[in-house]
Amino acid sequence: MTAPIGPRDSSATPRFAGQATYALLPSLDEVGTADVAVAGIPFDSGVSYRPGARFGPSHVREASRLLRPYNPAQDISPFAVQQVADAGDIVANPFDLDEAIQQVHQGAVSLLEKAGRFVMIGGDHTVAYPLLKAMYEKHGPIAVLHADAHLDTWDTYFGAPITHGTPFRRASEDGFIDLTTSAHLGIRGPLYGKGDLEDDQKLGFEITTTDFIEEHGVPAALQRLRTRLGDKPVYISIDIDVLDPAHAPGTGTPEAGGMTSRELLRIIRGLTDLNIVGADVVEVSPAYDHAQLTAIAAAHVVYELVSAMGARAEGR
Amino acid sequence: MTAPIGPRDSSATPRFAGQATYALLPSLDEVGTADVAVAGIPFDSGVSYRPGARFGPSHVREASRLLRPYNPAQDISPFAVQQVADAGDIVANPFDLDEAIQQVHQGAVSLLEKAGRFVMIGGDHTVAYPLLKAMYEKHGPIAVLHADAHLDTWDTYFGAPITHGTPFRRASEDGFIDLTTSAHLGIRGPLYGKGDLEDDQKLGFEITTTDFIEEHGVPAALQRLRTRLGDKPVYISIDIDVLDPAHAPGTGTPEAGGMTSRELLRIIRGLTDLNIVGADVVEVSPAYDHAQLTAIAAAHVVYELVSAMGARAEGR
Amino acid sequence: MTAPIGPRDSSATPRFAGQATYALLPSLDEVGTADVAVAGIPFDSGVSYRPGARFGPSHVREASRLLRPYNPAQDISPFAVQQVADAGDIVANPFDLDEAIQQVHQGAVSLLEKAGRFVMIGGDHTVAYPLLKAMYEKHGPIAVLHADAHLDTWDTYFGAPITHGTPFRRASEDGFIDLTTSAHLGIRGPLYGKGDLEDDQKLGFEITTTDFIEEHGVPAALQRLRTRLGDKPVYISIDIDVLDPAHAPGTGTPEAGGMTSRELLRIIRGLTDLNIVGADVVEVSPAYDHAQLTAIAAAHVVYELVSAMGARAEGR
Amino acid sequence: MTAPIGPRDSSATPRFAGQATYALLPSLDEVGTADVAVAGIPFDSGVSYRPGARFGPSHVREASRLLRPYNPAQDISPFAVQQVADAGDIVANPFDLDEAIQQVHQGAVSLLEKAGRFVMIGGDHTVAYPLLKAMYEKHGPIAVLHADAHLDTWDTYFGAPITHGTPFRRASEDGFIDLTTSAHLGIRGPLYGKGDLEDDQKLGFEITTTDFIEEHGVPAALQRLRTRLGDKPVYISIDIDVLDPAHAPGTGTPEAGGMTSRELLRIIRGLTDLNIVGADVVEVSPAYDHAQLTAIAAAHVVYELVSAMGARAEGR
Amino acid sequence: MTAPIGPRDSSATPRFAGQATYALLPSLDEVGTADVAVAGIPFDSGVSYRPGARFGPSHVREASRLLRPYNPAQDISPFAVQQVADAGDIVANPFDLDEAIQQVHQGAVSLLEKAGRFVMIGGDHTVAYPLLKAMYEKHGPIAVLHADAHLDTWDTYFGAPITHGTPFRRASEDGFIDLTTSAHLGIRGPLYGKGDLEDDQKLGFEITTTDFIEEHGVPAALQRLRTRLGDKPVYISIDIDVLDPAHAPGTGTPEAGGMTSRELLRIIRGLTDLNIVGADVVEVSPAYDHAQLTAIAAAHVVYELVSAMGARAEGR
Amino acid sequence: MTAPIGPRDSSATPRFAGQATYALLPSLDEVGTADVAVAGIPFDSGVSYRPGARFGPSHVREASRLLRPYNPAQDISPFAVQQVADAGDIVANPFDLDEAIQQVHQGAVSLLEKAGRFVMIGGDHTVAYPLLKAMYEKHGPIAVLHADAHLDTWDTYFGAPITHGTPFRRASEDGFIDLTTSAHLGIRGPLYGKGDLEDDQKLGFEITTTDFIEEHGVPAALQRLRTRLGDKPVYISIDIDVLDPAHAPGTGTPEAGGMTSRELLRIIRGLTDLNIVGADVVEVSPAYDHAQLTAIAAAHVVYELVSAMGARAEGR
Repeated sequence: MTAPIGPRDSSATPRFAGQATYALLPSLDEVGTADVAVAGIPFDSGVSYRPGARFGPSHVREASRLLRPYNPAQDISPFAVQQVADAGDIVANPFDLDEAIQQVHQGAVSLLEKAGRFVMIGGDHTVAYPLLKAMYEKHGPIAVLHADAHLDTWDTYFGAPITHGTPFRRASEDGFIDLTTSAHLGIRGPLYGKGDLEDDQKLGFEITTTDFIEEHGVPAALQRLRTRLGDKPVYISIDIDVLDPAHAPGTGTPEAGGMTSRELLRIIRGLTDLNIVGADVVEVSPAYDHAQLTAIAAAHVVYELVSAMGARAEGR
Repeated sequence: MTAPIGPRDSSATPRFAGQATYALLPSLDEVGTADVAVAGIPFDSGVSYRPGARFGPSHVREASRLLRPYNPAQDISPFAVQQVADAGDIVANPFDLDEAIQQVHQGAVSLLEKAGRFVMIGGDHTVAYPLLKAMYEKHGPIAVLHADAHLDTWDTYFGAPITHGTPFRRASEDGFIDLTTSAHLGIRGPLYGKGDLEDDQKLGFEITTTDFIEEHGVPAALQRLRTRLGDKPVYISIDIDVLDPAHAPGTGTPEAGGMTSRELLRIIRGLTDLNIVGADVVEVSPAYDHAQLTAIAAAHVVYELVSAMGARAEGR
Repeated sequence: MTAPIGPRDSSATPRFAGQATYALLPSLDEVGTADVAVAGIPFDSGVSYRPGARFGPSHVREASRLLRPYNPAQDISPFAVQQVADAGDIVANPFDLDEAIQQVHQGAVSLLEKAGRFVMIGGDHTVAYPLLKAMYEKHGPIAVLHADAHLDTWDTYFGAPITHGTPFRRASEDGFIDLTTSAHLGIRGPLYGKGDLEDDQKLGFEITTTDFIEEHGVPAALQRLRTRLGDKPVYISIDIDVLDPAHAPGTGTPEAGGMTSRELLRIIRGLTDLNIVGADVVEVSPAYDHAQLTAIAAAHVVYELVSAMGARAEGR
Repeated sequence: MTAPIGPRDSSATPRFAGQATYALLPSLDEVGTADVAVAGIPFDSGVSYRPGARFGPSHVREASRLLRPYNPAQDISPFAVQQVADAGDIVANPFDLDEAIQQVHQGAVSLLEKAGRFVMIGGDHTVAYPLLKAMYEKHGPIAVLHADAHLDTWDTYFGAPITHGTPFRRASEDGFIDLTTSAHLGIRGPLYGKGDLEDDQKLGFEITTTDFIEEHGVPAALQRLRTRLGDKPVYISIDIDVLDPAHAPGTGTPEAGGMTSRELLRIIRGLTDLNIVGADVVEVSPAYDHAQLTAIAAAHVVYELVSAMGARAEGR
Repeated sequence: MTAPIGPRDSSATPRFAGQATYALLPSLDEVGTADVAVAGIPFDSGVSYRPGARFGPSHVREASRLLRPYNPAQDISPFAVQQVADAGDIVANPFDLDEAIQQVHQGAVSLLEKAGRFVMIGGDHTVAYPLLKAMYEKHGPIAVLHADAHLDTWDTYFGAPITHGTPFRRASEDGFIDLTTSAHLGIRGPLYGKGDLEDDQKLGFEITTTDFIEEHGVPAALQRLRTRLGDKPVYISIDIDVLDPAHAPGTGTPEAGGMTSRELLRIIRGLTDLNIVGADVVEVSPAYDHAQLTAIAAAHVVYELVSAMGARAEGR
Repeated sequence: MTAPIGPRDSSATPRFAGQATYALLPSLDEVGTADVAVAGIPFDSGVSYRPGARFGPSHVREASRLLRPYNPAQDISPFAVQQVADAGDIVANPFDLDEAIQQVHQGAVSLLEKAGRFVMIGGDHTVAYPLLKAMYEKHGPIAVLHADAHLDTWDTYFGAPITHGTPFRRASEDGFIDLTTSAHLGIRGPLYGKGDLEDDQKLGFEITTTDFIEEHGVPAALQRLRTRLGDKPVYISIDIDVLDPAHAPGTGTPEAGGMTSRELLRIIRGLTDLNIVGADVVEVSPAYDHAQLTAIAAAHVVYELVSAMGARAEGR
């Protein structure tokens, strides 16, 4: 086996120069196949408030120029122990939610023919549904860790069954998710009614709120998540609005009182022995971002996810 | 007939205080019926590039706080010679283009039961189609003055027949527009192909480009428009991107080399003897605006349109 | 008793559409009387540094569009257990501090004829003086919880007795405040001299600094505040600059090293059994805000306050 | 006579380094007396809409770092033919309009003891009243060229006789202005009523609107102004909102359809043979500026004014 | 000969999706050779004021997503009549001006082995020197049209012979430029001294100032330029600060009173029968840009240059 | 001994008025000598990513206007117990790294002739090398506390030995640092390789990471630092990117997951009994800042450092 091809050499080309693939990694076309593919889904037609996440993938890639190849927090070189590549963007029809969902599903399925795992950069959270479908088709019902300010298990909004507020309900109903091992992280903020929580509970998710973290601390939250997720293949879906607006202003439905990026990164680092088979980081809306704040957070989150995949790949 | 109710008295309430209806006018509910209704259409699911125009109506209303009741450029008090009122927003489903178009059409029809004329604040340009349909149902085929950087007579985009790039083609095909008297103003920038112009010409529009204005001046452009539009009922549809990005950064598909706000206002002021039966000002996308630049331009454009309607109402 | 009228139905009208009353609630005019009125005071002529809080009320209302009607953190539907309404803005003369203070006082008094309690959205902190006066006239000397980076008990500034730096001194001198049960929260940053603290101590306030929170944690701070405030009617006055500039950039006199919005919300949630008879949230200056960061925090703070009022109203 | 001391040598110190006096000129303290003093008036308590001009002077000084010592448009080295110095800021009480006006007046009078002429950087337009008073005391009734979107001859606003909307009315009433030779330039936008124009006409001002410039061109406007102003000592008062919001977003009461900075600079350059005895450039509000756009325009306007003063000083 | 490969099909992939090559064109690697290469030079170590142009190339490419393949202003499909490709970025050492200049020169020479002509996106104006050297080596002394607010023929700045203020002096001294046929366009703003103009005149450039355009109009300026440039191979170097700050805020040394983007585009369109053998568009500094304003202008300028090259290639 | 001259009296001159020296202190020229000099180093030619820190000193000074003279957190009046003065900017050649480093060194040496200690405001981190050299020449090998997201002990970057990524390696090699007592604080984020840590360890630094603080808390970190630093003269070098991007967006190489400004201020306050002989606060890049967020943090950090110096001066 040949050594993975890593990021462009930043001692030869300044990091601000050249094309912005994720972390300046090679494109999937260049390497043919990959252990992990990072891809974008420039789509935001499922949003209920501030749009703009269609520009998220290129924004996160720009901010990822600063990443370096060794991750001391996980003591791993994620691009050396596995081939990671940028698979470009999955195209989705901005005017037709149904077709878009099919396109994202098909794009994910195709990608899994060339890459063992993927981390998707959204785009709005609608995409979690077709991604989970692809995961289910490969792995069967899958454990899901869903980090978000919102439950995203609402029923419908304006008659549309699958939008950025409903993917985990639809995926639950369709059996894609192993609801005995799935969890929400970072939930906070007002709901439409107490029934939102009850509906979610009926589906079977476990909730670790931001308030729980505030009260009990990150280690307790981590312990709770690890107990819940067990050792099954797990899919991690991170809505960047799980962060406080101070840490992620560039998003569509911000809620005050969120997590810090430090807490979120710490939690992901605490999950490195899980078998993370896929992930998404969504809802980065550049028009509301400042100084790439949100994109930097998202780029680091992707980096920790890819590192965690590498830890597993290494057989740690 | 009682005197129209005008804007809130700014010597009693500072203009920055209180609710931001358009120009601080009464709501249509307060006055019951109106000569002219100004309404918002917070909808942007038809955009092909930067979204965000769903927040356009409230943004333009905020910027309209500064408007005062006498228009010296037209020597008219537009809110005194006719009742103008803010009719609030027309609701449109953000997830279903077809339903949204029906909702906008129905909203416009209902509005015309209470108001003789309207000026709509978008929202994206998709809304021109249902608005023209409502105009047609009331007036028959109508002369259209369409100010825009783009022709908006493209055929389809991603299979969607009616988006912000196609309303004037669809409306033409459906007979809503009197194509012998209709015109584009301010067209500029790259096209997909020469056929775009040919298709537009076949439909029957006359084009006055920004280049024409640059070369021949505003009076020549005005003369050309007036000759074309004649004395029929006319609908004026203004995409704010007809302005240069320096004058309207807050829009979805900006093109360099556009008109100044001064030129656009002058042109509208030159059309005051036309029978303007309806109008829209669309594509203000606040997330890309700065210091309300674009919203101020749009608020003034609406003001000149309402003033021009008043001139006609006065029988000048 | 009829059921309270709640926010506009967001399944019928998208939250980004329609007029931005606070939390999309009905106006006080529509409901006649209310248990809690939320009103704005667009006034900033009392500021000593960055002005702009005159635009605070409309900015916070815009950001409050995202709020939903059930508050899981307090397990309450604040708009269902009590009638909450938006009472619009209290007008204040921007050129005459004395008259403005009288106008705010009179506005508050009038409001209390229609609403049992109020939460005011500033505007600068000058308004705390006339609001406390109105509270005093209704309740007698009142316990005050004042969250702020600054003591606001300075004496005069440029000869003006009542500005945004002095309201709690003047209100103390005038007997509006029960100084045996009142407290500052979140104080930090440089002062003019040690005498500032001594003067404040002489007045009788208890101080819980941000440093106290950093060192001892939120529960200890909460315990301290609850002991201090007792069970008397309490007025809560929150200067948004109690938050760190990262959480509230849009304010007039920012100080580094502040509280997170998560900490502030937690503290308010810990005070729900208090009898909160009035409150203000002030010093949001939109021209310095980004992506509505500060306004979102302020809108949530108002929401928690209204929820806490509801808990009391419910007789919990 | 010793040679004037010019700007800091930018071949020794980069222009971005060191203290930002206007154009990096010496302070008045350093040179003792000056032919022309540039001073700031950080005051904005007279504004009726967006505040913030209190930060204008330092903002314009920062943007003036880029100015160089030779002005090819006027073929003059304005800092070599006369001593120009930065006189710092005139202090004005932000809480008391009357006192502030007295302070500005006194500051201007004191300054004229050390400097033959001045150019003041605002601050809001309220300051024109005390500045004109100082001019009157030195020169008798003075010709005024007032460039502004607004007439600023309104009567009162909220009972305050002197605010940023009234200085030229009050100064006219008090006899400071030679109304047979005074003119407004760049007027545009809505008014409260036709009476605003009539009142202004009664006072005696001549108006050259932005529309006049759009229709007849800059040379015609210049001719009109020169005829009007004659050869008397003239005071030039420039509200930066005479520029279009695209050219000056950072201001308090923006009006669409204004002048370009190129047109304004050209007009000033056409007035170099006038005897300009004083000037102000006001209403730069940095919180609404972007990339120093407005401040750059203002800094250049000051530069052309100082150059024009130099031309006269040279006896051209 | 096979047909050129054009931009990515925007009816299959939305323009906001996928990698942002210039105008979504293929990379030079994909097509092997090209008639015209568009390349970036992410380098800004030669700037004397605001840095940041190192991020210019990616910023302009992002803004170029909106360009379409047919240019009606020149009636040409620039990507169909010639192969245009994105050649990526030329790497330059940010810490060593000399080495950087050599790298840019070598990069340009290498590029000319694969592409007949190039348009470079800067980067600061330092790069004009090595680009002109490469041009000279291929074409001999070359006619230069230099559009800029500044002469860029200063001698040295802080001892550095080649910076963004000196490239045309150094290139003149080294004989790269045919000074009998070269011209500056758009010059304006203060200089260090009258000698700056004299030095420039001695070198032999002809100057068409922004004032000339303001006074005489674009057609006169065009006539003047065409007479000067004749029919020799011409290199066009455009510093984006030739535009007014309102049109190009995102640049390093802005000067008030500049050209509009409309004027600049018109001028380039008037030069289509020239034999433009190379070009650069420089000094776009994204950190000071807003809503891609400056980048949109730059992307359109590149587009008109490539179109003009196509007109010549077509043998018009 | 005469009493130190403190900041300008803010009861006579509003803090927003007048020249922005650091904390509105007198200039060093005015007082002749000082116990502590605060100076700027407007230099950023050593940055590897986002430039702009050349504008840092004036930006931090502007934000320091709000500081007041008594520091309750340290119970000290730092400007009363010692003379603190603003020494202006040290000039450095932007085009020649070697010369710039010599100029900064010479500037620091000269400054130490007039001031016992200094706090420098950068500028990029390159300046730490010449500053440490000056410290070494005065104090011998010196203990260094280096707060930063990055180690800054990399070897070379593009062949340049001293850039903002290498100062502590070069200073270590040259013996300026007492490596037995020196420490990094706040390190986090990806590295080029594990060797980066090993190289740093070989040099002899102790690392307290942000993760350590997240896990063990600030008191444990403080204890660790105090044990390490001992009681030798210590130099504190603070790269503002040690803060999270939410707290310091305006910097050149941001890394997610950093410290809060509250934590950083607390740590400095915990070091007041150290003998801090010099300090720098660097890498504030205004073009990426918002609402002076980063500058406010930096201004407060400088304030705590100067206060800590005062505590020592007082002999506490």
